Amino acid sequence: MTIALYDLVGADETRPFSPHCWKAAFALAHKGLDFRSVPVRFTQIAGIEAGEFRTVPVIRDGERAFVDSFQIALYLEETYPERPSLFAGEGGRSLSRFIEKWAQTTLVGYIGPSLLLEIHAALEPADQAYFRESREKRFGRTLEETAKGREERLEGFRASLAPLRLMLSDQQFIGGQGPLFADYIVAGIFQWARVISPFPLLAPDDPVAAWFERCLDLHDGLGRAVPAAA
Amino acid sequence: MTIALYDLVGADETRPFSPHCWKAAFALAHKGLDFRSVPVRFTQIAGIEAGEFRTVPVIRDGERAFVDSFQIALYLEETYPERPSLFAGEGGRSLSRFIEKWAQTTLVGYIGPSLLLEIHAALEPADQAYFRESREKRFGRTLEETAKGREERLEGFRASLAPLRLMLSDQQFIGGQGPLFADYIVAGIFQWARVISPFPLLAPDDPVAAWFERCLDLHDGLGRAVPAAA
Repeated sequence: MTIALYDLVGADETRPFSPHCWKAAFALAHKGLDFRSVPVRFTQIAGIEAGEFRTVPVIRDGERAFVDSFQIALYLEETYPERPSLFAGEGGRSLSRFIEKWAQTTLVGYIGPSLLLEIHAALEPADQAYFRESREKRFGRTLEETAKGREERLEGFRASLAPLRLMLSDQQFIGGQGPLFADYIVAGIFQWARVISPFPLLAPDDPVAAWFERCLDLHDGLGRAVPAAA
Repeated sequence: MTIALYDLVGADETRPFSPHCWKAAFALAHKGLDFRSVPVRFTQIAGIEAGEFRTVPVIRDGERAFVDSFQIALYLEETYPERPSLFAGEGGRSLSRFIEKWAQTTLVGYIGPSLLLEIHAALEPADQAYFRESREKRFGRTLEETAKGREERLEGFRASLAPLRLMLSDQQFIGGQGPLFADYIVAGIFQWARVISPFPLLAPDDPVAAWFERCLDLHDGLGRAVPAAA
């Protein structure tokens, strides 16, 4: 049966942008599972699946529904063990938690504030009100104030990618010769930025940019199927 | 047969301090292998094993010798597969490369400069001359200039440990419920600092400090057998 992936969108339903939904989409594709993206807006999340969830991604697989990209990856790994592994063993599963936290602090810590205005602009009016209120509460200041200065911080952000950049001189993917969920954790975040904003996060000659292009090529170009923001 | 680990020391042969040698020592202990630490000073490295190596750790296991902590871990994993795994699968092995680069940039990037004067003070005169010359060349300024300002940078260093700190709210070790080589990569670096300097790298209530204490307890307190610098 086709798995449903509730996938965050703004006004344009063909452009899912949530980093966490992208992680789940890449994970489903990695497993070779049939899935369809169900577009859902911020203010619609509470209405899906009888109101059980407050965040996406959520997947519905037959009788079961799961929330949270890492939980979804764990579920897929356990439920479909005969398909390509997302972790390649228990060590990969545990270490992926470190990658997740690195990505959350290092990548989302810079990219999140930097994209606020472009995310806001991409939303429907009702979602814009929710987004502004919730994010201004989270950051303790206006969207405009929080988003300011991304150009000045860009060099520092690029420098903070050094672990990934250095690793890529040893291997093609975080997963080694091929991608694992750890790659999707990081690529999902770059895809979020790619779909939302033309801001040049990565220098074109950065090995991290080449790695992300490889990720966009995976699974018949799943990531590339949504054009980059112009 | 007992494996020999060439282990970097200063004037006091009972206090091996190299982070990379500690990674190897932890890895050997994790595998439950019999090994003896062979103390070697900076200026003696070129004289071990017929001059084959320029860095330590080096291990001699019967007919074979290997250099580099990660290569040693790979060798041990391949040669002693029936013993406790250092990677818990191919995913763990690949993702450990990311942890290595993160530790090298984030931890060594701060700790290395910060410890220069105390490492220098711990060495024999011939090693002091080598150390000063090579490190001043590497950093492009005197040891004293490079080491300056560690107090001012401490807060930023502690903040940079956020990925590890956040991960520790999910699991006890980077390896999950128990340690893997990824833990030793990071713990080896903290052990380097612990053996060389009383400088308080970690706040006592930091979950990272609690994790490091757990690492010091491992393998019959292998790390704790060398007292902390006073």
